[in-house]
Amino acid sequence: MPIITKTPEPPYYAVIFTSIRTEGDYGYDETAARMVELAKQQSGFLGIESAREDLGITVSYWTDIESIKNWKTNTEHLEAQNTGRKRWYSAFKVRISKVERDYGM
Amino acid sequence: MPIITKTPEPPYYAVIFTSIRTEGDYGYDETAARMVELAKQQSGFLGIESAREDLGITVSYWTDIESIKNWKTNTEHLEAQNTGRKRWYSAFKVRISKVERDYGM
Repeated sequence: MPIITKTPEPPYYAVIFTSIRTEGDYGYDETAARMVELAKQQSGFLGIESAREDLGITVSYWTDIESIKNWKTNTEHLEAQNTGRKRWYSAFKVRISKVERDYGM
Repeated sequence: MPIITKTPEPPYYAVIFTSIRTEGDYGYDETAARMVELAKQQSGFLGIESAREDLGITVSYWTDIESIKNWKTNTEHLEAQNTGRKRWYSAFKVRISKVERDYGM
């Protein structure tokens, strides 16, 4: 069952990662799974949601901007970012945003 | 070809819509396509990115919060939201967020 992240009352942060993959795996699936596991261990991590068709969208949620900065500079994550730029993605965009309001059912 | 939205320099707004679909179409595909067309006509609309696997994620981008409020109360959109709650989604979450920083390649 897919799960929508249970986030706290706003404000909190969302990192919107939109990407277009190159062809071929080159270790992508394994690293992507590892990065999710590693992110879950980080301070301030709230959850992650992901879907890919032609375009991939991954949104991770964080309590504060400092936690996002720490995750961005995590050594193993830096290595993955580097391979991402060189091999896995033909284009990507990272957007760091502050969630001001939310609702749902 | 999938396209990553060309957004202006931050700040701008992102509406992150995460959803889980019920089974059956019930006019969903047609309305979803119509809503994208209608959104594109709205003042302040910057673009939209979408992907669905088990979970659906649609992120629309807007210049300001007023434009988001106007879109939310658009008559045809209100009707779609209503059907969404009743028929198309078993769960969803809408998060309104202010993009503070972005980068990519």
